[in-house]
Amino acid sequence: MKTLRPSPITPTVDFDKPGVQHGFLRLPYSRDDSAWGSVMIPLTVVKNGSGPTALLTGGNHGDEYEGPIALFDLARTLDPKDVSGTVIIVPAMNYPAFRAGTRTSPIDKGNMNRSFPGRPDGTVTEKIADYFQRELLPRADIVLDFHSGGKTLDFVPFCAAHILPDKRQEEQAFAAVKAFSAPFSMRMLEIDAVGMYDTAAEEMGKIFVTTELGGGGTSRAETVRIAKRGTLNVLRHAGIVGGAVESQPTQWLDMPSGDCFSFAEDEGMIEPLVDLGEAVEAGQVVARIHPIGRTGQAPAEIKAKLSGILTARHFPGLVKPGDCAAVVAVLVD
Amino acid sequence: MKTLRPSPITPTVDFDKPGVQHGFLRLPYSRDDSAWGSVMIPLTVVKNGSGPTALLTGGNHGDEYEGPIALFDLARTLDPKDVSGTVIIVPAMNYPAFRAGTRTSPIDKGNMNRSFPGRPDGTVTEKIADYFQRELLPRADIVLDFHSGGKTLDFVPFCAAHILPDKRQEEQAFAAVKAFSAPFSMRMLEIDAVGMYDTAAEEMGKIFVTTELGGGGTSRAETVRIAKRGTLNVLRHAGIVGGAVESQPTQWLDMPSGDCFSFAEDEGMIEPLVDLGEAVEAGQVVARIHPIGRTGQAPAEIKAKLSGILTARHFPGLVKPGDCAAVVAVLVD
Amino acid sequence: MKTLRPSPITPTVDFDKPGVQHGFLRLPYSRDDSAWGSVMIPLTVVKNGSGPTALLTGGNHGDEYEGPIALFDLARTLDPKDVSGTVIIVPAMNYPAFRAGTRTSPIDKGNMNRSFPGRPDGTVTEKIADYFQRELLPRADIVLDFHSGGKTLDFVPFCAAHILPDKRQEEQAFAAVKAFSAPFSMRMLEIDAVGMYDTAAEEMGKIFVTTELGGGGTSRAETVRIAKRGTLNVLRHAGIVGGAVESQPTQWLDMPSGDCFSFAEDEGMIEPLVDLGEAVEAGQVVARIHPIGRTGQAPAEIKAKLSGILTARHFPGLVKPGDCAAVVAVLVD
Amino acid sequence: MKTLRPSPITPTVDFDKPGVQHGFLRLPYSRDDSAWGSVMIPLTVVKNGSGPTALLTGGNHGDEYEGPIALFDLARTLDPKDVSGTVIIVPAMNYPAFRAGTRTSPIDKGNMNRSFPGRPDGTVTEKIADYFQRELLPRADIVLDFHSGGKTLDFVPFCAAHILPDKRQEEQAFAAVKAFSAPFSMRMLEIDAVGMYDTAAEEMGKIFVTTELGGGGTSRAETVRIAKRGTLNVLRHAGIVGGAVESQPTQWLDMPSGDCFSFAEDEGMIEPLVDLGEAVEAGQVVARIHPIGRTGQAPAEIKAKLSGILTARHFPGLVKPGDCAAVVAVLVD
Amino acid sequence: MKTLRPSPITPTVDFDKPGVQHGFLRLPYSRDDSAWGSVMIPLTVVKNGSGPTALLTGGNHGDEYEGPIALFDLARTLDPKDVSGTVIIVPAMNYPAFRAGTRTSPIDKGNMNRSFPGRPDGTVTEKIADYFQRELLPRADIVLDFHSGGKTLDFVPFCAAHILPDKRQEEQAFAAVKAFSAPFSMRMLEIDAVGMYDTAAEEMGKIFVTTELGGGGTSRAETVRIAKRGTLNVLRHAGIVGGAVESQPTQWLDMPSGDCFSFAEDEGMIEPLVDLGEAVEAGQVVARIHPIGRTGQAPAEIKAKLSGILTARHFPGLVKPGDCAAVVAVLVD
Amino acid sequence: MKTLRPSPITPTVDFDKPGVQHGFLRLPYSRDDSAWGSVMIPLTVVKNGSGPTALLTGGNHGDEYEGPIALFDLARTLDPKDVSGTVIIVPAMNYPAFRAGTRTSPIDKGNMNRSFPGRPDGTVTEKIADYFQRELLPRADIVLDFHSGGKTLDFVPFCAAHILPDKRQEEQAFAAVKAFSAPFSMRMLEIDAVGMYDTAAEEMGKIFVTTELGGGGTSRAETVRIAKRGTLNVLRHAGIVGGAVESQPTQWLDMPSGDCFSFAEDEGMIEPLVDLGEAVEAGQVVARIHPIGRTGQAPAEIKAKLSGILTARHFPGLVKPGDCAAVVAVLVD
Repeated sequence: MKTLRPSPITPTVDFDKPGVQHGFLRLPYSRDDSAWGSVMIPLTVVKNGSGPTALLTGGNHGDEYEGPIALFDLARTLDPKDVSGTVIIVPAMNYPAFRAGTRTSPIDKGNMNRSFPGRPDGTVTEKIADYFQRELLPRADIVLDFHSGGKTLDFVPFCAAHILPDKRQEEQAFAAVKAFSAPFSMRMLEIDAVGMYDTAAEEMGKIFVTTELGGGGTSRAETVRIAKRGTLNVLRHAGIVGGAVESQPTQWLDMPSGDCFSFAEDEGMIEPLVDLGEAVEAGQVVARIHPIGRTGQAPAEIKAKLSGILTARHFPGLVKPGDCAAVVAVLVD
Repeated sequence: MKTLRPSPITPTVDFDKPGVQHGFLRLPYSRDDSAWGSVMIPLTVVKNGSGPTALLTGGNHGDEYEGPIALFDLARTLDPKDVSGTVIIVPAMNYPAFRAGTRTSPIDKGNMNRSFPGRPDGTVTEKIADYFQRELLPRADIVLDFHSGGKTLDFVPFCAAHILPDKRQEEQAFAAVKAFSAPFSMRMLEIDAVGMYDTAAEEMGKIFVTTELGGGGTSRAETVRIAKRGTLNVLRHAGIVGGAVESQPTQWLDMPSGDCFSFAEDEGMIEPLVDLGEAVEAGQVVARIHPIGRTGQAPAEIKAKLSGILTARHFPGLVKPGDCAAVVAVLVD
Repeated sequence: MKTLRPSPITPTVDFDKPGVQHGFLRLPYSRDDSAWGSVMIPLTVVKNGSGPTALLTGGNHGDEYEGPIALFDLARTLDPKDVSGTVIIVPAMNYPAFRAGTRTSPIDKGNMNRSFPGRPDGTVTEKIADYFQRELLPRADIVLDFHSGGKTLDFVPFCAAHILPDKRQEEQAFAAVKAFSAPFSMRMLEIDAVGMYDTAAEEMGKIFVTTELGGGGTSRAETVRIAKRGTLNVLRHAGIVGGAVESQPTQWLDMPSGDCFSFAEDEGMIEPLVDLGEAVEAGQVVARIHPIGRTGQAPAEIKAKLSGILTARHFPGLVKPGDCAAVVAVLVD
Repeated sequence: MKTLRPSPITPTVDFDKPGVQHGFLRLPYSRDDSAWGSVMIPLTVVKNGSGPTALLTGGNHGDEYEGPIALFDLARTLDPKDVSGTVIIVPAMNYPAFRAGTRTSPIDKGNMNRSFPGRPDGTVTEKIADYFQRELLPRADIVLDFHSGGKTLDFVPFCAAHILPDKRQEEQAFAAVKAFSAPFSMRMLEIDAVGMYDTAAEEMGKIFVTTELGGGGTSRAETVRIAKRGTLNVLRHAGIVGGAVESQPTQWLDMPSGDCFSFAEDEGMIEPLVDLGEAVEAGQVVARIHPIGRTGQAPAEIKAKLSGILTARHFPGLVKPGDCAAVVAVLVD
Repeated sequence: MKTLRPSPITPTVDFDKPGVQHGFLRLPYSRDDSAWGSVMIPLTVVKNGSGPTALLTGGNHGDEYEGPIALFDLARTLDPKDVSGTVIIVPAMNYPAFRAGTRTSPIDKGNMNRSFPGRPDGTVTEKIADYFQRELLPRADIVLDFHSGGKTLDFVPFCAAHILPDKRQEEQAFAAVKAFSAPFSMRMLEIDAVGMYDTAAEEMGKIFVTTELGGGGTSRAETVRIAKRGTLNVLRHAGIVGGAVESQPTQWLDMPSGDCFSFAEDEGMIEPLVDLGEAVEAGQVVARIHPIGRTGQAPAEIKAKLSGILTARHFPGLVKPGDCAAVVAVLVD
Repeated sequence: MKTLRPSPITPTVDFDKPGVQHGFLRLPYSRDDSAWGSVMIPLTVVKNGSGPTALLTGGNHGDEYEGPIALFDLARTLDPKDVSGTVIIVPAMNYPAFRAGTRTSPIDKGNMNRSFPGRPDGTVTEKIADYFQRELLPRADIVLDFHSGGKTLDFVPFCAAHILPDKRQEEQAFAAVKAFSAPFSMRMLEIDAVGMYDTAAEEMGKIFVTTELGGGGTSRAETVRIAKRGTLNVLRHAGIVGGAVESQPTQWLDMPSGDCFSFAEDEGMIEPLVDLGEAVEAGQVVARIHPIGRTGQAPAEIKAKLSGILTARHFPGLVKPGDCAAVVAVLVD
């Protein structure tokens, strides 16, 4: 295996220093509008004593907001006196995407969650991934990575972990999901895990927990409350923050196969016939796509292939061929 | 008053012909990618007998979907046998904006609802406005124009009309609002009515009804059902479609002054503290704006100036100075 | 009538000076990339003795090339000794459009041939139009303005003039068309003449001749030869250049009504079934539009409404609703 | 040799099922405007009995139209009863480019014909290439790939195959070229064959035939007829469609060296002096480039280096340094 | 004269309230990315007692920095106790341009200094101009408007006023220029004063003083010091701030005619032969323009038409036809 | 080590032919606007006799002008009679960037000085780098590569070479720096030399000299004179051009560590407090960053970490987090 050159990223904090530090990951980025410019990724380190380390991340995709809100808030308010161990908070991993309000980086169109393990001499997105791969993930015992649907998808709010080959690791992850206490909890079997941050963390043996908490490129008071409560619950569960987990009932879901997904084959305006969280039957028409070039044309139909509840849906009013129109998950007792 | 040149728009339908016609308003638009090109605005005319004329419009702003869905659907399904009079359906008034999924026209950045009375020799948006002003509005007895919040605002679903100097005209409009039967109904006092389609119709003495039925650049099954039911209810109320109005309870709202609106003065990520439809007190912090350049910074606060319910809110996760962050309306008994 | 402020354009030539002058019309244009910048429109003045004045223009639309080629060539080679009078040559009227290779100006999207009479305090395109209106057209006795189809249309090569209220003026124009000696000659009845350079010249009583000599945003050796020969023929006919008109047979055409034009109502890929110059019958399918979102779909048909020859056609392989797909002109004996 | 991961592309058709199937190659493509979006590449499979397999492709470059027209038409009309074997039709290989009307993909600027053998984890264009390389080409016995000049080149219509090391394979390919029966037939010696679809097919031992049938980003009725006739002729020649080849006379051409090509060194407006198909002598000026910044400047000259016929030419009216201005091919008896 | 509608701009400050107020001019601006958005133009009002009113403005062009730096600094530090009268500070008039770092507004390409008197129903730039015309200028006794060369010009640092028909007004303006104490002082005769802020103020009889203090889209410590000292000097001179004017020697300049300006006719790379402030003779070559398409080509020459000093020059390394390459001003004893 | 395919670049000159040749490096570049297009990089070769070879380059970054001006000028004027050996002049290495006036290539955003050793099958920038790596550098004995600060940085004018492991090579380089005779001379210890042209040349054992001669995307008469004199001095020093070095006093500088650089952490408008070449003390505030969203806010401070002189600074008036705000170098006796 060839040795990689060191990361070009310089942190302005000392990860081993007790107390609260607000700083940056500085990534040199020479470009037309700044010959000696950098990307400055904000981060906070809160350290006290010798407990475990949690790595908390939002903005893996730049248009998902519950995580960044909960984490900017936590970074500002977490008191080291309440901590036993270390909390590393990066509220906006793909910071260029987050500033632009877009899923992918405006610099290189990089999808952070398909860029692992990254490269120290790659694109800006790959350089960030490489820094997480080689510098931050190794420091962590537990990793909580926030997602929501972004501008083009909307989800019922759930916390999730993956089915893993190491069943002990899997069990620990689902225990953390349970502690998070989202209204829904998901057991995910990743079909194509190549390039994911999740996979990078799991392959290092870390406890990895993720979420989908809404979407549409916005957030709601309710979903922000879920994110904030879930973050503290995970830190409590890990023994980093004191006190009992604030437990809430959750409905477990399963996505057993590719039949969960219904894709559009037509261009047009989408008419939802079912809202998120409602029950659907296999074969039911859950949405229609109206052609918009003329009046008087019949719409195409989007059908559920499984019975369950509508778990995610296409968000924008217009739809393109190939867009995922609807996702159905199965209720687990 | 100077005589205007004729509109350059040619309809491919005959407004006086009975039956159903699906056609276009053809607006010549010479441009780099089509020297002899046109904008083709779909419309449907359904005519039977001699009853009144309703003009139904969606897509006044191009990123609002409940109206266009209800109207493309109605245009395809309305049977002339069920009509007494004429229904003119233009599901997407600002058709270039609607195709682009944007509030304003990608051609000229025209905001249709600030472009009336339009100009036959103006921009594409002004030419469309002029055609409505001089050709379509004069044909109508009642006008229903659909709005929602678009990509950047979200509303509780309401139907609305304006406080008018002619109290008989006002009374007729609010009777139509009541017939629409949205969950909320609004009495609007327009501060700055210059350039609006509403004003153009009202100044001709037409009964004018409008809506705000959601937002975020999407639609939901529930709000689409409100739009469909409301459309038929208005047509029934006007005697154009037979049968009784399908009445539903509604909560009346009032927006008494500029204090309904709270504007952001800061750039950052918005954290909603109250969701749409929830009660707020005057002085209550309804949202916070987190600076995103660093961690550890205090957020700015957005406060309600009136007590009432949260009726509209900024939708995207990021916010800019000057954006309307929250709107509070007062409950009317 | 209100007095207009003087044109901001400064010529670097003296229109009254004998001999050959190559220079510019300098139009101040302050912008982000040049605070004190200008548009520099090349022109040539060739003057000898006291004969009539011809104004020769190309690049009225910036993506039409036969005229600019013939006129840059003439400007370089015309010897004042061969001239009796004045020849003013502006090979590229809408110079910003010509540099960009686009129909309209990249600065303001101005279509020069819809911008007359222009405004001295308007857009860049309107300022150029105003200079022609108030400074150049008044100097001319005869005006030859070159057009071709541009990037989005293709024409059989013809020279044309308008049916005019002043029959003596009309007769002089058609005599010049005949002298031009293109393969086809067209009698045009302009439906909507507002804003045209043609109209501006004709209303001043000038002899105005125009062309359509091909298209597609290219030129051919054959069509360039037509343009060069036609230019000299018109100058000979006007008595400005000596020698006999080099006459060629021409076929006269007529475009009697709006039925000459067939517009697309569908989006897709256009399949031409008839080539330019071929005979068509009324009702004949002259092109088809294939939907491109799927295979297996039936194409829409474009039909001729008149019998005649295919005179112009949509050029690009893809077509949009509202594009002019085909133009049929009627043969005149 | 390392094992590649499977292609991310899922076909919605079954290549082994008899009859006609219209479907898609679905390629997942996550992006800012569709988090779980896909590229949907239309394809048709027509299968009957056990004969050979032809793979027919257009839109390798997205602005070339004779192939896509002939293939969308064939996909819609080919009756399985008339087939002995399998016909796989992909009318637009680089579908994103085809939809955009551009040579290369608007997503990644990928030139499909320089992207082989592709990569399953590469760009969208490379993923499509990989699918052809590993899934479609192996199924084929004969491959017909349509090209024309696109928006920036124009060609005399020819069918072509390559000089190959395997003379039996070469002979079979030229027999298919002869069957195609274009007005011209070309023997091509590829100087730089790296990355080409042609090379990928030939290295697998397939019979590979290609064309250049016009250009300029348009098509003509005549060249479309050549494409349709040629397609059926190749299928007849291969024994997949019954009946005799509809043979037409053809002129064989050769491009013996780099001296066939004349490149521009100057910026300006190009004046063609010779049209496509006309004879040229070595040293003859075939085009001139006029400077457009001023009048009165001498044009640069483009000369033929060989005697032959003008086979291809720069299409747009403006030309840049480095553009190929003219191609001369040698007549073969 | 027709009555204009009221300005849509709302100030968040009270111009008549004593003390320091930091606030905004809020200009509603509905657009695709904010349906109910606004432009928020920062301003400060410092008021104490009943003395005269100074209106201090920067960012009339958005890429000029000495003024905004001096005024943001003054707004933060000016103590009302030191003021007798009112100081209204708008550090960035064309705020959208200033945020973008461009001369003109990115919203409408409006050049603020050619937009007066503005329109309340015009573009964003015209709405700002109208607010200054009807609300702010009438409040002022003396107006200081900062300019520098912006990204595309560079100037020797000077303060200036105009030759005016009212000689008493002119005398007062030049007295203020003298008080400013820049290294150079200019007597300007405006050739084309239409649309300027200067003209708007002068026509109301105000004392109007302006500057050019450098350029290139940057500032220097030295030019910032000139701006800060000049601002206080003007306020002292006006009796609004106490203490004596801090006087510095100045060299008076004159720009007697259009011969001060030398324009480029060629495209290329500019080679300066004289630096700012150096003496030049009429006819001297002050810069050369190298063609960049090839090596070995002779450069074009830019000559001074007058003797004097080089007062302004084209800044970027590349130059376009029509750009002002050099400005020579005449020394006044 | 795997064998690379040959470079796709074809020179139009013969490097071994005596005399002066002006030509191009032709790099085929197929794209949407030119299917068979090329990048044409101008170069000049001046050869006489058998002396050493100098490779002179500018435009490594496309917005730096002293080098290109000196080299276009030298290419036009250098007489082979005055040469003993060979001078290869490429005034604009990253020619697409140079034409665009940008640091990096508009084609692929390639930073030439981070693209070595390049790739023959890579991006356009990598293909150019590969040609220098494998074709031009091997021919050279001495390499002079011009830099300035570009649009976003400004430098005191210096010539520089690197501290090298081979002390004899280092000594030769510094002797050439001394011969150049810039006002300042710099000893550079490169922290991260990966991908640089400098490193590529040095690793081949060449004498490599570079410069920083100003910046801001402009040039001055004074810095152009430094570049021209320096070029001739280096050629004289190398014995390629006859005559004595025209020596000038120089001040040697050193940049001992990363503490030379001060980076911005805030967004806003930068106020320089020190100008280039002025002395600064460690801890001194050298610039301030004013927030521009409101008035009345305190600016952030940029401090020097070392005592020395201000050697480089951020140029544009606005600044972003991560931009290099100031560089301090230490005086060497």
